[in-house]
This record gives sequence, structure tokens and C-alpha cells, in this order.
Amino acid sequence: MFGFEIKKEYGKARRGVLSTPHGKINTPAFVPVATKGALKGMGFDEASALGAEIFMVNTFHFYCSKEYETVERFGGLHRFLGTDHPLMTDSGGFQVFSLGAGWGRSTGKLPHKGASSSTERKEGMVRIKEKGVVFKSPFNGDIISITPEDSIRAQEALGADIIFAFDECTSPADSYDYQKDSLERTHRWAERSLNTLKNDHQAMMGIVQGGRFEDLRKNSARYISSLPFFGFGIGGSFGESFGDSKENMYSILDLLSEELPPEKPKHLLGIGEPEDLVEAVKRGVDLFDCVIPTRFARHGTILSSHGRVNIRSSRFKDAKGPLDENCSCRVCLNYHKGYLHHLSRRREIYGIMLLMVHNLHFILHLMADVREGIEKGDLSEVERKKERFSS
Amino acid sequence: MFGFEIKKEYGKARRGVLSTPHGKINTPAFVPVATKGALKGMGFDEASALGAEIFMVNTFHFYCSKEYETVERFGGLHRFLGTDHPLMTDSGGFQVFSLGAGWGRSTGKLPHKGASSSTERKEGMVRIKEKGVVFKSPFNGDIISITPEDSIRAQEALGADIIFAFDECTSPADSYDYQKDSLERTHRWAERSLNTLKNDHQAMMGIVQGGRFEDLRKNSARYISSLPFFGFGIGGSFGESFGDSKENMYSILDLLSEELPPEKPKHLLGIGEPEDLVEAVKRGVDLFDCVIPTRFARHGTILSSHGRVNIRSSRFKDAKGPLDENCSCRVCLNYHKGYLHHLSRRREIYGIMLLMVHNLHFILHLMADVREGIEKGDLSEVERKKERFSS
Repeated sequence: MFGFEIKKEYGKARRGVLSTPHGKINTPAFVPVATKGALKGMGFDEASALGAEIFMVNTFHFYCSKEYETVERFGGLHRFLGTDHPLMTDSGGFQVFSLGAGWGRSTGKLPHKGASSSTERKEGMVRIKEKGVVFKSPFNGDIISITPEDSIRAQEALGADIIFAFDECTSPADSYDYQKDSLERTHRWAERSLNTLKNDHQAMMGIVQGGRFEDLRKNSARYISSLPFFGFGIGGSFGESFGDSKENMYSILDLLSEELPPEKPKHLLGIGEPEDLVEAVKRGVDLFDCVIPTRFARHGTILSSHGRVNIRSSRFKDAKGPLDENCSCRVCLNYHKGYLHHLSRRREIYGIMLLMVHNLHFILHLMADVREGIEKGDLSEVERKKERFSS
Repeated sequence: MFGFEIKKEYGKARRGVLSTPHGKINTPAFVPVATKGALKGMGFDEASALGAEIFMVNTFHFYCSKEYETVERFGGLHRFLGTDHPLMTDSGGFQVFSLGAGWGRSTGKLPHKGASSSTERKEGMVRIKEKGVVFKSPFNGDIISITPEDSIRAQEALGADIIFAFDECTSPADSYDYQKDSLERTHRWAERSLNTLKNDHQAMMGIVQGGRFEDLRKNSARYISSLPFFGFGIGGSFGESFGDSKENMYSILDLLSEELPPEKPKHLLGIGEPEDLVEAVKRGVDLFDCVIPTRFARHGTILSSHGRVNIRSSRFKDAKGPLDENCSCRVCLNYHKGYLHHLSRRREIYGIMLLMVHNLHFILHLMADVREGIEKGDLSEVERKKERFSS
């Protein structure tokens, strides 16, 4: 039922086809995020018509509310959401550490001296133990615990095609010692995650961590790839909080392209800026999930052949013509910039819906261009598009 | 270009066709409201596919922000919004008195002793003079004036097919003396509105006011119908703030069905509860605009063959099956109540979008049933559907 076939390679970039029980995904692929079981302004079928072939649902929200039990009573996410498209769920780990804690953390043995202030730690405490994590729900303040076993059982209840092992997502500011300790625990959690999965209609990805440290990343890649995972997630926050994040991310990806087994799919978690997609594909990444097309739409930012543009800028008040004259999406074919400016300034739902169509179309078409570039052995056009975003 | 043809009558109910430069509208018709130039969760084409044939845009927001000037530079609303469907705009009067003032008001000659407290009057002052109205913008606090001439010029700039005369929308709590004084001014404003319109691709509706007083309504109907309006709006707030509002509204509609010329279209402004649509059609009303399908969607309320139902109720958490087993909309064909409950509880945009599809489908199909009932000379099925909403 599951498979990953590499059709063509160009440098380290790979043009592949990932098979799941609900269908095939052409890679490199962008995976739109339906955080709580819906894209924020569009149905799955419309996103599919734009070129999306698989969607990511976040386990965290369904776990905190125990709604994974409800979903299970419906027969899993596909039935609950009313879709037959391939789906993936993450493990909840990322949100436990970002939403639940604001990076504030403590462990019994190893009090963490990171960038977080002591206030943050008290506010958003996450207690990490060998068994699992205890944290305060960001939704209602409940004290919630989650272990690797809990995460996998919830993901089995949700029933997505591809699921992820439970990991600790460390902060870019974490020290070497902390990262090393965390990594070893994440490796033990990876084994426990694998041991928990009891069905064969879901495939699990293991997650490589190790922060910004090359030897830890190498160690993690070797360990995780020694386990029988279907593929690999590349985790860790490379956010803007971390100064030289992009260069560091690219060099980590260079390293992992050597260390991870080439025949398995690699998913770069939470990354989706156009320039990062292109740079990561060139370093062998096959899958990406990111909320950017949606989040940008809510804030009036569009992705275009001129780079990022904020349509709320007053210079668009009287502007005729499409958002992007090089775009063929239905928004660019039908609406003036001035109208989209008006809707976005007034926070109209329909404005979010339209900007999201455009942004998702942009990203999915960029990925289609990437795939075509790999097939043709020429990524120069994609590189040129990327340049608009790198400045 | 404009016309109104009555194809069939059944009692006082009329099955007609209203012609505009942008197309024909089968009446009785429900007019979805695109307040600021967009339906809150759906495009015009999707609403059209559900059966909507004309849309209402509110002049007030475009007037306060002076954006009618922007729209004019685009060539009018049809071009600005990117739609060819028939459109109507209201005069701004209703919002001046409801949003702008919270019903607090004063005139030079006739200090109004209504239900409003003196605090409200100071907070949300609207000064009404013979020339027009001065009020504080509810958006930014600017002091704004609007006269009948201003309203019509703004509506000409917006360029909708059907426009409305500028009127004062009185409060249900207003005294007889206040209503009488206001009505006479509204009549003078009606003439000034007509005298301002300088083009023949827009048709104007005059507005009948007079509150809950039958002699004032009769006086207003006679005066307004003596002027060369294309049709008539029936104005006034019959809101729940006014105790016996529904019965009063129905008796006023009975009266107006005798007093207004039968060959012209009648639009009941701002009304859209299913039971009111049916009762008003039986009293000769041809057009309705209302935000209910959208507003209800945002609050989780659905219109169904079981009446009004709030999908956020915890009893729907595990509920399988469609919102309404008697509904054929794409939401009822594809989604479980439990999923819609989940989305609506979490205030997901996609939940608003789906509930709006269902609600608008419900209202538009009710109107289609009403039209079919008039054609067949049998409204019993529609009466039965209505009963679910009357209790």
C-alpha cells in the first residue's frame, strides 16, 4: 500500500511518487495544513483542484480536546472530514513545545539554561520526563500528559495515512548539552512510537532532531535511519528567532542528504517559504508542510512573481488589474487588486478566501515547476522565481 | 431595461419577473446581502448557483470611507466586485440611524422623547435637519453628513441596478408625533432623491415609513406611490425590541397590499426569517434582503426542516449524518453534523463557509418553493415548512 519511487534525479533533487492507501503524491510536494481538520478558508477539494495531493492535520488540538476519540467513533479522519484525499498527522510534539510552553521547559535532571526567561517558564511550564511530557493546555489550562504511546494511539484513532513519531522539538537557542540529552530521549521515544503502531494501513515517519549541531544531526540521522521507519521528518525550529537560521538550515540539509538513506522520503517539517522550498529540494527534501499560504492570506500578504507583497498597502487602493500578472489562478483572472485591498483591509472572510486561493496556487505551482525542472534537468527557471523571495 | 411583470397571482401573493440591465430576477426573491461588497463566506457565483439572482450592497460603508469614489474610478460596483449579477444598493439611511446612533437622535424643532436614554443620545448623536443628517462614524469617529443628494450621488457612483431613496428609519419605540414629523421629512427627501438621479440605467425604489401607525403608513404609501418610483421599499424596524412586532408587521403589510399600486415591485427591507418571508409573500411582497443566512452561519445556527438549530450544541458532538436529512445542498450531501459542530465550536472559517452554503440554500429553496406554490395555487407545503419556525 505504501511506497516511494524515485523517477528522476537532478543533483540531489529527486522527482518521486509516494503511494498511500488513499492515493499517490507527486514529490517534491507541498502539504497544506488543515490544523483543526479544515484549511482556513477552503475545502480539500478546491485545494486538490489547485494541485494539493495530501494534507496535514495537527494531532495536538484533537489530543488536548480528546476529540481523537470522537473522530475514531466516526471511523477516522477521512470519514470525519468527508474527504478521500491522502492525509498525514504530526505527533503533537511540535505544538506541545511551541504552543504549550513558549519554549520554557524544565527536566528533572537537566535544568535548561536557554534563552527563555524564568517568567516564561513559570507561565508555560512543560515538564519533560523519560516517560513523556506534562504541559498546560493553551486552550483551557488543563494539565495534560502525552507519551509516545499516547501520541501514536491518538494518531491511530485519527487514522491518517502517514503519521509521525513523537519527538521533542528543541529550541534553536538550546545548548549543546541540552540538545544532546533531548536527542537521546527523542531516539528512545522513536523506538517506543514504532513499537506502539499496531496496524499496517498507516506508515510512520521518524524525526531527526539535533538542533544546529552537525554532529548531533549526524548521530540522529544514523540512529533514526537504523529503525524501520517509512521515511523521515526533519524537525527543529529554524525560525527567525535564530539569527543565521537559513544558512544553518541549508547546511544541516546538506549533511542529512548524505546521512539519510536516499531511497526513503524526507519531509522538512513546518517549512514553506518559497526560497526555502527550492533550496531544500536541491538538498534532497521530498515533502513540506506549512501554514504560510493561509497565514499570509489572513494578514494580506500575497506570494507573487514579484516576491511577497502586502495587498493592504494604501498604494493598492485604486489599483486595477490582477494581484500578479503572471498568475493564472481564478483570483488573478477575475479580481482587481483594489477590490482585494478593500476586502483585506476590512478583514472580510471572502478576502481571506481569495488570497488563500492565490497563495496556495502560487506555492503548488512553484512545486509543479520544481518537479518539471527536475524532470528536465534544469532548475534555472525555478531559481529565478526564487530570487524574488531571497532579498 | 427595467420592468416588472406579474406572471401569476394567488391571493395577494405574486409570481413575477423583475428585469434589470444585468438580468432578470424571479420574484418573490431573497436578496443576499454583501454588506461591504462581499458575502461573508462565499462568492457571488456560488450564491448564484444556489439560486440567488440579485445581491444587496450597503452604501453606508462605502459612503463613510468615501470608497464610493474609488468604486466609481473602477467603473462601478459590477467592475469593482468582478460580477455581472444584478445588484442593488440601499440609501445608507438605515445604518445611519441604527449603527450610527443606536436610535439616539435629536432634531432642532422636535426633541424626541423616545425609549433611548439621554446617555445614548450623547454617545451616538445623530442630528437630523431638513437638509440631511450629521452623525459620528461608527468606524473612526469622524463627523459625517449625508443628504438625500449625497446618498443618491454615492449610489450613482456605485452604479447598482436598483437603488433606494434616502429616508429616515425610525425606531419602533418612537411616538406618533415623532413618526409623523419624520415621515413628512422622509417624503420631502424622497422627492429630492428622485430629482437627483441623472441616469437611466438605475431604477429607484421609494421607501414607505410610518412605524406602527396605520394612518401614517397609509399616508406614506399614498404619497410615495404618487411619485415616479420604479417600486417601493417597506422600511422601519420591526425588530424584537418591539414587543408585538410580527403581528404589527403583518397588519402593516396587509394595509400596504391595498394601498401600494399592485403593478410595481415591493421590497421588504431587512427581513428574512423563514416565517416572515412566507407571511409577507402572502401579503404581496416581492423582494427581501437579509443578513440572516450569513449571520446565523457565523453563530452556528442553521435553518432546517426542523426549524432553527444550533449546531454548537453538545448533543451534536458525535452526531453522524447531515445537518438536515431533507436538504440536498452540498454540505448536507458531504458532511456529518459532528464535523460541522467541531468546526463551528472552533470558529473555523471553513465552518462559517459551510453553514452559510446550507443556510442560503435553505432560504433560496424556500423562495423557489414559494414561487412554485404561487404558480400551482397551493402554498400548503410552504405553510407547513414555515410552521417549524413559528413556534
